[in-house]
Amino acid sequence: MDIHLVAVGTALPGPPVDNSTLVARFGMPSVWTQWIDIFVGTDTRHFARDLATGEVRQSLTDLCETAGRRALAEAGMTGAEIDMIVLGTATPDLLMPSTACLVADRLGIDGVRAYQLQSGCTGALQAFDIAALALRGGRARTALVLGAETSAHHLDLDTDLAGAPPEVQVNAMLFGDGAGAAVLDARPRPGAPVLREVSCELVGAGRAPGQVVPWYGPADEIPDGPPVSEDFKRVEQAALPMAESALTSLLEGLGWKRTEVDYLLPPQLSGRMTDQVTEGLDLTGAQVVSRVTEIGNTANALPFFQLERLLPQLEPGDRAVGLSVEASKWIAASYAIEAPGADWEEI
Amino acid sequence: MDIHLVAVGTALPGPPVDNSTLVARFGMPSVWTQWIDIFVGTDTRHFARDLATGEVRQSLTDLCETAGRRALAEAGMTGAEIDMIVLGTATPDLLMPSTACLVADRLGIDGVRAYQLQSGCTGALQAFDIAALALRGGRARTALVLGAETSAHHLDLDTDLAGAPPEVQVNAMLFGDGAGAAVLDARPRPGAPVLREVSCELVGAGRAPGQVVPWYGPADEIPDGPPVSEDFKRVEQAALPMAESALTSLLEGLGWKRTEVDYLLPPQLSGRMTDQVTEGLDLTGAQVVSRVTEIGNTANALPFFQLERLLPQLEPGDRAVGLSVEASKWIAASYAIEAPGADWEEI
Repeated sequence: MDIHLVAVGTALPGPPVDNSTLVARFGMPSVWTQWIDIFVGTDTRHFARDLATGEVRQSLTDLCETAGRRALAEAGMTGAEIDMIVLGTATPDLLMPSTACLVADRLGIDGVRAYQLQSGCTGALQAFDIAALALRGGRARTALVLGAETSAHHLDLDTDLAGAPPEVQVNAMLFGDGAGAAVLDARPRPGAPVLREVSCELVGAGRAPGQVVPWYGPADEIPDGPPVSEDFKRVEQAALPMAESALTSLLEGLGWKRTEVDYLLPPQLSGRMTDQVTEGLDLTGAQVVSRVTEIGNTANALPFFQLERLLPQLEPGDRAVGLSVEASKWIAASYAIEAPGADWEEI
Repeated sequence: MDIHLVAVGTALPGPPVDNSTLVARFGMPSVWTQWIDIFVGTDTRHFARDLATGEVRQSLTDLCETAGRRALAEAGMTGAEIDMIVLGTATPDLLMPSTACLVADRLGIDGVRAYQLQSGCTGALQAFDIAALALRGGRARTALVLGAETSAHHLDLDTDLAGAPPEVQVNAMLFGDGAGAAVLDARPRPGAPVLREVSCELVGAGRAPGQVVPWYGPADEIPDGPPVSEDFKRVEQAALPMAESALTSLLEGLGWKRTEVDYLLPPQLSGRMTDQVTEGLDLTGAQVVSRVTEIGNTANALPFFQLERLLPQLEPGDRAVGLSVEASKWIAASYAIEAPGADWEEI
C-alpha cells in the first residue's frame, strides 16, 4: 500500500532573530557575532518567547494548530477526515494533557488515536513511523503527523550567557522554535509523493547521553544556571558516521543506488555541522534541502520545513532521502520519499 | 498473526504506605484515615520518594529496569532478542534522553525502535498498540512494552495538605508509583495468551481537560502550592460511561458476547470509583482483577499489575478485557486477551 504525503504546513513564531540581536540581548561581546557566523553557521532563528519582554508569544499547541491547519488546507481536508494524530516533541506545553490531544480538539480531530512521542530530533520521524505502521496495517486511512518545539520553558533571559561555559553559549545560538505538520493518505492519490520508508534506530548501547534536558515539578528546586547540557564536540564527531550508517541501511533496504538520490534532507544541527554531514555523505548528485541558516535547529519541526521546500520541486520519478540524528541517547533515523514516475504502479 | 503475551514483570518502590502513615506525614487530622477508607477506598500505595527523608529512592529508569528484567527472565529471553521497546509514562525522569532509551541500554536492547509515549493512564495501552502495529506489520517479532510512573517530581513533602482544597487532598491519596513490563512475541508460541485487540480513542472534543499537569524549566518559576489539578467529580462522572463505551466497541469488534468475558481488568482510579465502574458495566459473569486497594492508581503501570495477577489464572479458552480511562483530555482505551482453547488455530 502506498502512503502518500499529500500536504505539509509549518509555523514560525515571531520575527527572525539574527546573531547580532541575540548577542546584544544576552550581553555577549560583539565579536561573538562573527564567531557564530564562522563556527556555528546559523544566521537567524525564531523564538516562541519575546526576547524583549519575556512574554510567551505562542505555545506549542498554538504553533501546532497553525501548522496543522495549513497542512489540512493544503490537502483540501478537514480535521474530521483525519484518522489519527501523532506528534513528536521534546518540549510539550504540559505533561498532561498531551499537546497532541489539545491540538486535535482545535482542529476538529476526535474519536481516533492521538499519540505524542517524547524525543529529541528524531521524534518527528518516530511519528511518521507510527502513522505509517497504522496506515499499512489498515487501522487508519489518513494521519496528521506533527513535529514541533518551543524553547519557552528553557530560554532563560536572565542567564549570564557571557559567563557561561562555551557549550552553553553555543546551545543558545543553535536552536530555534517552530512547528510542522504533514497529511498522510493511504487511499489512491495518483501522482502524489509516496513515503517509501521510515526508520528510527536506537544506537545508544554503552554510550553516555549527548544531550540531557531535565524538567522540574513542585517537589523540585530549579537549580541556578542553564541546565540543558549538550556535548557539542561529541555530537559533531558522531553526526556524520550516524547519518552515513542510517543512509546506507535506508538505501540498501530500498534497493536505491546513491546516484539515484535526487534530494538530500540532512540533519540540521548547525550550519557548519550540516555542511560537514552533507559533504561527507558521498551523495554528490543530490541537491541539498536545508533551512538551517534561516531557522536554526528546530529539532522535531525540522523535517516539515525541509519537506515544504522539497515538495514543489519534485518531478515524476524523483527520489529524496531525509536523515536525522538525535544526540540524547543516540538515535539514527532516516526516511525516503519518491515521486511516482510514468511507470509507477499504485499499490 | 497471533501476538503472544508471553511474560509480565512489575516493580514497586519502597514499603507500602498506609493511610494513617500518609495522614500523619502530611499533618492531616486523624479522622482523615477513616475518610479515605470510606470515600477513596485505597488502603496502601508505594512512593519512589522516601516520605521521611525526602530522598528519591528509585528513578523511573530504575523501576522500569527492574520490571523489564523480571519480564525478560520470566520469558526466558535476553534484551538482545527484543526487537523494539515502547514505554508509556506521564512522569519521565528527564525530557531527554527518554527513559525508554536509558532502560534499553540497561537491558541490552539496541539497534531497534525505542519509543516513549507521553500520556496519563492510557499510555501503557498506547504502547501496546504501537508494538502490536509493528508486530502485525512484520517490522518486529518481539517487543518489550512498559508502563511506569514515579511521583518524585510532584510529591512535595512540604505541601500544607491540611490547608489545601479537597481535590488536592484527594489526589495525594489516590496515586502510587510503580512500573510494569510485558514481553510480546509474534512468533509461534502454542498455548500462550494472545493479545487480541488494543484500542485507544481520544474522546475529548469540546471537553475541558479533567487533569492538568504542568512542568517547569529554567525560565520558569515553580508556583507555590501543588499544581497538579484534577477535577475529581468530573472524572467520577465520566469514568463509567467512557468505560462502558470502550467495552461495547471492543466486544463488538471481537464478536464477543458479554457473557463470554471471564475476567475484567477495570480502570483503577480509586477503590471506590473502580467499584462503581465494575458494578455498572453489566459484566456480572466476569471476575474482577483489581489491585487498587494495595497500590492505588499507578496510572501507566497499572495494566501490568493486573496482568501479572491474571496470567497464572487463565485456563484454555478464557477471555479477559482490560479498560482504561484517561481524564487529561479524555481518552478511552481497551484491550482483550484470550487464552487459546483446544480448537485454537494459530495464525
